[in-house]
Amino acid sequence: QEIKVKWYDKITLGGYMQARNNDLYKTNPNMENPQGDRTYGGYSGFSLRRMRLKVSGQVHKRVYFYFQADFASDGKNLGQLRDAYFDYFIDEAGAFKLRGGQSKIPFGFENLQSSQNRIGLDRNDPLNSAVKDERDLNIGIHWAPVEKRALLKEIVNKGFKGTGDYGMAYIMMYNGQKANTLIPNVDKLNHIAFRFTYPIKLPSGQFIEAAVQGYTGKYVTTEVNDAVKLRDDNGNTTDIDAVNQQFRDQRLAVSFLYYPQPFGVQLEYNFGQGPEYKYDPTNVPSPHSIGVESLHGGYIQLMYMKRIKQQILTPFTRFMYYDGGKKFEQDARSYEVKELEIGAEWQINKAIEFTANYTIANRRYEDSFKPINREKGQLIRLQLQINY
Amino acid sequence: QEIKVKWYDKITLGGYMQARNNDLYKTNPNMENPQGDRTYGGYSGFSLRRMRLKVSGQVHKRVYFYFQADFASDGKNLGQLRDAYFDYFIDEAGAFKLRGGQSKIPFGFENLQSSQNRIGLDRNDPLNSAVKDERDLNIGIHWAPVEKRALLKEIVNKGFKGTGDYGMAYIMMYNGQKANTLIPNVDKLNHIAFRFTYPIKLPSGQFIEAAVQGYTGKYVTTEVNDAVKLRDDNGNTTDIDAVNQQFRDQRLAVSFLYYPQPFGVQLEYNFGQGPEYKYDPTNVPSPHSIGVESLHGGYIQLMYMKRIKQQILTPFTRFMYYDGGKKFEQDARSYEVKELEIGAEWQINKAIEFTANYTIANRRYEDSFKPINREKGQLIRLQLQINY
Amino acid sequence: QEIKVKWYDKITLGGYMQARNNDLYKTNPNMENPQGDRTYGGYSGFSLRRMRLKVSGQVHKRVYFYFQADFASDGKNLGQLRDAYFDYFIDEAGAFKLRGGQSKIPFGFENLQSSQNRIGLDRNDPLNSAVKDERDLNIGIHWAPVEKRALLKEIVNKGFKGTGDYGMAYIMMYNGQKANTLIPNVDKLNHIAFRFTYPIKLPSGQFIEAAVQGYTGKYVTTEVNDAVKLRDDNGNTTDIDAVNQQFRDQRLAVSFLYYPQPFGVQLEYNFGQGPEYKYDPTNVPSPHSIGVESLHGGYIQLMYMKRIKQQILTPFTRFMYYDGGKKFEQDARSYEVKELEIGAEWQINKAIEFTANYTIANRRYEDSFKPINREKGQLIRLQLQINY
Repeated sequence: QEIKVKWYDKITLGGYMQARNNDLYKTNPNMENPQGDRTYGGYSGFSLRRMRLKVSGQVHKRVYFYFQADFASDGKNLGQLRDAYFDYFIDEAGAFKLRGGQSKIPFGFENLQSSQNRIGLDRNDPLNSAVKDERDLNIGIHWAPVEKRALLKEIVNKGFKGTGDYGMAYIMMYNGQKANTLIPNVDKLNHIAFRFTYPIKLPSGQFIEAAVQGYTGKYVTTEVNDAVKLRDDNGNTTDIDAVNQQFRDQRLAVSFLYYPQPFGVQLEYNFGQGPEYKYDPTNVPSPHSIGVESLHGGYIQLMYMKRIKQQILTPFTRFMYYDGGKKFEQDARSYEVKELEIGAEWQINKAIEFTANYTIANRRYEDSFKPINREKGQLIRLQLQINY
Repeated sequence: QEIKVKWYDKITLGGYMQARNNDLYKTNPNMENPQGDRTYGGYSGFSLRRMRLKVSGQVHKRVYFYFQADFASDGKNLGQLRDAYFDYFIDEAGAFKLRGGQSKIPFGFENLQSSQNRIGLDRNDPLNSAVKDERDLNIGIHWAPVEKRALLKEIVNKGFKGTGDYGMAYIMMYNGQKANTLIPNVDKLNHIAFRFTYPIKLPSGQFIEAAVQGYTGKYVTTEVNDAVKLRDDNGNTTDIDAVNQQFRDQRLAVSFLYYPQPFGVQLEYNFGQGPEYKYDPTNVPSPHSIGVESLHGGYIQLMYMKRIKQQILTPFTRFMYYDGGKKFEQDARSYEVKELEIGAEWQINKAIEFTANYTIANRRYEDSFKPINREKGQLIRLQLQINY
Repeated sequence: QEIKVKWYDKITLGGYMQARNNDLYKTNPNMENPQGDRTYGGYSGFSLRRMRLKVSGQVHKRVYFYFQADFASDGKNLGQLRDAYFDYFIDEAGAFKLRGGQSKIPFGFENLQSSQNRIGLDRNDPLNSAVKDERDLNIGIHWAPVEKRALLKEIVNKGFKGTGDYGMAYIMMYNGQKANTLIPNVDKLNHIAFRFTYPIKLPSGQFIEAAVQGYTGKYVTTEVNDAVKLRDDNGNTTDIDAVNQQFRDQRLAVSFLYYPQPFGVQLEYNFGQGPEYKYDPTNVPSPHSIGVESLHGGYIQLMYMKRIKQQILTPFTRFMYYDGGKKFEQDARSYEVKELEIGAEWQINKAIEFTANYTIANRRYEDSFKPINREKGQLIRLQLQINY
């Protein structure tokens, strides 16, 4: 006999909002960061970076469901899908879970960590350039002993900025193109991703987590200017258009976390290969090409977490470096990024957080429209976050 | 004195998701079915066919409200309206109900049946080509004796794939163009639709339902290539552009249901007239034209429903045929479709369903861009559905 | 120790829908009102004017959150953001509240009043032309003594069509461009708005409210035809393109409310300066220009409120006049509007309302596509509203 459960005891509604202003001090409005925040440079004014609505719940003892939409998307604040996935508990305890739908690709700690929990305003360029919006349509299996799943939840519940439970081991097949688009009918294999993370709690109460992760596949370039040609593996520009071509796309990353009690360290590093734009003015007829190049980069973040009654103040600093292409941007845009951030997050209560951050950056980003383009600058960034 | 009812006892939130993959076996990626599924052919990869969020409830003893949005729409997984309608109970018992807003047009059993309940992956071409997204803005009245309304609900509640309660008799006025678009200011009458269905429960417990339904109106073609001209009722191509022209648009359909206990049959057939593209290379100056043509087609579906504890396994086969235009596609595209499906739905529990299906099809679909176009092929289709 | 509050006791879900038909009688389908209703003229058929979903709640004793999306937006019934804001209670009682995010700009009583409560179908042109969709991204502080906040709520709770609680005094900084768009990186100051309202309850039980409000800033025109040039403050057309130019944008308004018990009066008037299109065929080379012009206009509305058991019938009439530009329309379109409405709202119960309205209008609206354009006409307008 089934007992009739009320819908609201099965399903939970919630979300969060991030409102920003980057205009207080900005030495170079031309220094843009489209992957991170459109008002970093290029656009101005108060902005909504995220307006999330989540519906989730254990809809059956064996089935968990998660839906999330963002109402600050598509340049017009339209509601766009972020997550729509289920977990099917293969065993009763849920050590093994089959996950499918649109969900996060397990490549990188910070990519898996919710923006609601992240201390910095934007994800780091080096690892976040692996997957557009961190998500894709996929099917996979993640595993962890029940006590490790509990530990992953405990980290978040205690107010530390963990990833939540993606298991200790995760293997997944996914489209490997951009989320929220139609996938062109090209004869290619799907992407494969894997991740292994090991979280522990020391007798002192300290949480430590170390992870290794990677993916491999072929990426099909779709947003490419007509003048851009395919560059072959020997570095020679062919006369083949680079649009709708397949490129090797693979990365490997390591992550290390020492959660702040009160002092913490977070670092990640990745390297691999992927499509990247190159400008060669000596090349005739076209100076513009896309070919497979090496990429690498990472970041280190130091933080200090101070609890003052219900408030939490967390000063932090982060340095990041990235050298490589961003496959899902125009012409697989070529990047070299150095960025230093110094800031603090002030959690006033569970519902409201304020973050201020001083950013010093040196960003080279080049495509066929701007083949020589390096911007340097400094800015102050402010964010208010509401959790509901 | 009103008693204060909690909002969550008045309103219910829920929905469902359908994730698909059609790539396991596909002999002809050029064989497309845009009305059914964009990854049938043309596009590839894992896809979300539907990601629905529903908010509904008896918000007053005389007023029922239903809202549904789909977050797998517009090619970018944007949230788009599906339903937004109310029922006003004209009498206290609700035998007569006034319905208004955007809701389903009562033309065809399968069109009214929710995709959450349908056993096949896509609706049948012959009847589904009558109304884009099955819905439109409308106002109408539906009627049924209270015991018949209860019977229609009982069918669904017992796990049979009924339509739910659209009354026994339904008459409606609706825009008659595409849902979710602005209606051009053309001097035309609205569409009128009616439906009469008769559901019965035999003393054996067997459910049977038979229905007749139809609509009439004028359709204004909007997505038409410049080269396409108006064809008059004598079949002669004029020199008038076919865009923004009005065409006779009327159909009649019959439906019959024998619900599977364990063996079931479902069949529908419709015929009528509507705009259809025609290619005549001998015609000078333009070989492309749209005029009113006859259309007809239907399907028969056989199914067997096997309950194994909480699981339900339902093997099925469906053959369908359609010959006619699809008014809301490019140039009122001309179709001739034969399709045979053999598959099974496996309801693992109330929250998760898996469907696999082998499809053999022969599809002719022609417009001014592809005036001679017949594709044949076979494919395996897979779907996971989550109900929440 | 925190007590765990259930999410559904903290958050409330609700909304409303407005379905319309303006086709019953329409003497001039070319008389359009894009700011008000696209089916006023120009488009036809049943339409959804609004389909709102709201999620709100006191998510912390010091933090209130409000989210609202509209699923009848962007011409395709996509879900688009309306509100996403928080109130932070500076003092425990909430006399002072810090508000931030996307919310209503405090310019005008009717602009602040929800469309769910408004008796007329559309907002008045003279004050509503100040702010696109009445909302913008902002940060501000509003204040009222606790008893005045209670009074503002009492007005609405008693079924009178007030604004709800925006405080007695409100000062705000906001982007000043259109809501739900990216703000171009132009070196300009934000807009500043302020409002002061004084609601009182007479010993007779009568509610009266009087308000003064204003804003100042610079508006950057973005939707401008190439042929349109900048007109300087002396009224001379320059050879500078008018697109992306900054224009003085400031208004002052007064509001007066005498709530209907049973007879009521509502009037508002505003004047100021802002960009406005002008056509001067004698000007060579371009007859089209945008420059800063004076604007002014207001409305008076008379209403009579009759309660019949749970039903409420409210006949009303409104006359409005506006002479000025609409900065956020094509070429800062030039308007002169006179409109008289006679109608009634019939609230059948708390969940369903029907409004019928006879409109007589004389509308001049001119841009570079239609530089001489005056339309006159009459129409009957019908609306069904569902509250859930």
